[in-house]
Amino acid sequence: MKDFPEIRALTFDVFGTVVDWRGGIAREAEAMLAPKGHALDWGAFAVAWREQYKPAMAQVREGRRGYVVMDLLHREMLEAALAKFGVTTLDETEKHRLTMGWRRLDPWPDVIEGMTRLKANFALAALSNGNIALVLAMAKRAGIPWDAILGSQLVGTYKPDPAIYDSAPRFLDLAPREIMMVACHPWDLDAAKARGLRTAYIHRPTEWGEGTERPLPNEGEYDVIAHSFTELAETLGV
Amino acid sequence: MKDFPEIRALTFDVFGTVVDWRGGIAREAEAMLAPKGHALDWGAFAVAWREQYKPAMAQVREGRRGYVVMDLLHREMLEAALAKFGVTTLDETEKHRLTMGWRRLDPWPDVIEGMTRLKANFALAALSNGNIALVLAMAKRAGIPWDAILGSQLVGTYKPDPAIYDSAPRFLDLAPREIMMVACHPWDLDAAKARGLRTAYIHRPTEWGEGTERPLPNEGEYDVIAHSFTELAETLGV
Repeated sequence: MKDFPEIRALTFDVFGTVVDWRGGIAREAEAMLAPKGHALDWGAFAVAWREQYKPAMAQVREGRRGYVVMDLLHREMLEAALAKFGVTTLDETEKHRLTMGWRRLDPWPDVIEGMTRLKANFALAALSNGNIALVLAMAKRAGIPWDAILGSQLVGTYKPDPAIYDSAPRFLDLAPREIMMVACHPWDLDAAKARGLRTAYIHRPTEWGEGTERPLPNEGEYDVIAHSFTELAETLGV
Repeated sequence: MKDFPEIRALTFDVFGTVVDWRGGIAREAEAMLAPKGHALDWGAFAVAWREQYKPAMAQVREGRRGYVVMDLLHREMLEAALAKFGVTTLDETEKHRLTMGWRRLDPWPDVIEGMTRLKANFALAALSNGNIALVLAMAKRAGIPWDAILGSQLVGTYKPDPAIYDSAPRFLDLAPREIMMVACHPWDLDAAKARGLRTAYIHRPTEWGEGTERPLPNEGEYDVIAHSFTELAETLGV
C-alpha cells in the first residue's frame, strides 16, 4: 500500500475508464439494427463511431466552433459511422435513440465495488468530456456513485484543455495536489499532471477491442498504475 | 397521491430546505465560543450571521460585485455577527474553522429517508446558492444522496436570478416542466415557477427558530405543499 495522505478527491475520466463504451455501443447498435436486417461487426461499428471523438472535440477546443455538448457531437458523429457501414435505414427518432445509447453504457466489472470503497474516504467527481445529463443518466442506470459531476460542460471546452483540469481544484476548493485524476488514457493523465494533479492510470486493455492492447506505462510515470478500481482502492488504503 | 408523470428530476434548495442551518450553526458557534467563556444566545447568533445573506448576495446579483463563492460570503458575514455579539476572541484560523461550520450542517430528520426514496425514481440535484465544495462537503458528512450539484457557482450569480433556474433544464437536458423545484421559501419557488419549473413547497416552521412560523401557502399556489421530504415522496408516488 502506497501512502497518499494529501488526496481528498478523485476525479475520473468516464468513457473507457469507468464504462466500456465499445461493448455498450455494440449492444445498442445491434439491438436497433439487427431487427432491420443488418449484420455488422458491431464492435467495429462502435469503434467507427468513437473514432471521430478527438477531431470533433478539437474543433471546439481550437475555437473553430463554439461549445456544444457531447450528446450533440455523438449525434453528428453517428452519421459518418452509419455511412461507413452503408446503413441508411434509420429515421431521425431512431438516430436519436441510438445516440442516447451513450447514456446506457455499463461500467467495467470492478467499478461499482471500487468506487463504493473509495467513496467512503474520498470525494468522487466525474471530470469527463460528457455533459452533465449524459454522465448523470449513465450513473442513474448503472448505479455509479458520483459525489459531483464536473467536467467539460462547466468549462465550455474539452479535455485535454488545461482549463478543465484547473476547474477541479476550483470547484472542489482543494489544492491540485489534493486531487487524483483517474484515467486509462495517458494523454488525459499527462494533461492533469501538467496542472499539478496527482494521477492514477487504470489499465483497460480491451477498451478498443481484443488485440488493441497498449503497453503499461513505465513504473513511476504516474502516481498509481492499477488494473482495476478495486486495486486502486487497495493502493489508496480503503 | 397526485400524479406528476412528467417529472424526471427534482432540484433542491439546500439551506433551510434540506439542512437546519440555525441548529447547526448554533452548535458550531457554541463549540468554538463557549470554551472561550462566551455565553451567547447561540440560535440568535446563527440568525445574526444568516441575516446578512440576502444583502450579501444582492451585491453580486445586481452587479455591484463580481461573483464570489458562498464560503467567502459566509466568512465576511461572520464579522458582523461577531461584532453584534461583542466577540473579539477569535483569530483568523478560528474564524475560518467556524465559517466551515456551514459545511457541517445536519439535514432535517425526514431528509435522508425522503431523498433515498425519491432517488429511485428521480434525478436529485442541488440547486443551491452554496458553492459546489460547500454542498459536497455537507453531503459527504451527512449522507445526502445527490445525483448532481448544480446552482449558483455554475452560473456565476445567485438565486433568485432567473439564470439559475434556466440552468437546470439546460444542464439536465430536460424541459422546465419535467423539473420540480423543492424549497421551503416562497421567493425561491416563485422564481422557479416564473421560469416554468414545477414547484414543491416544504414547510420548515422552525427554520428561523421557535415562534417564527409563517403561514402555509394557499392550496394551489405550488404543485405540492408538504411538511417533509417523506410526504413529498408519498405525493410523488415513491
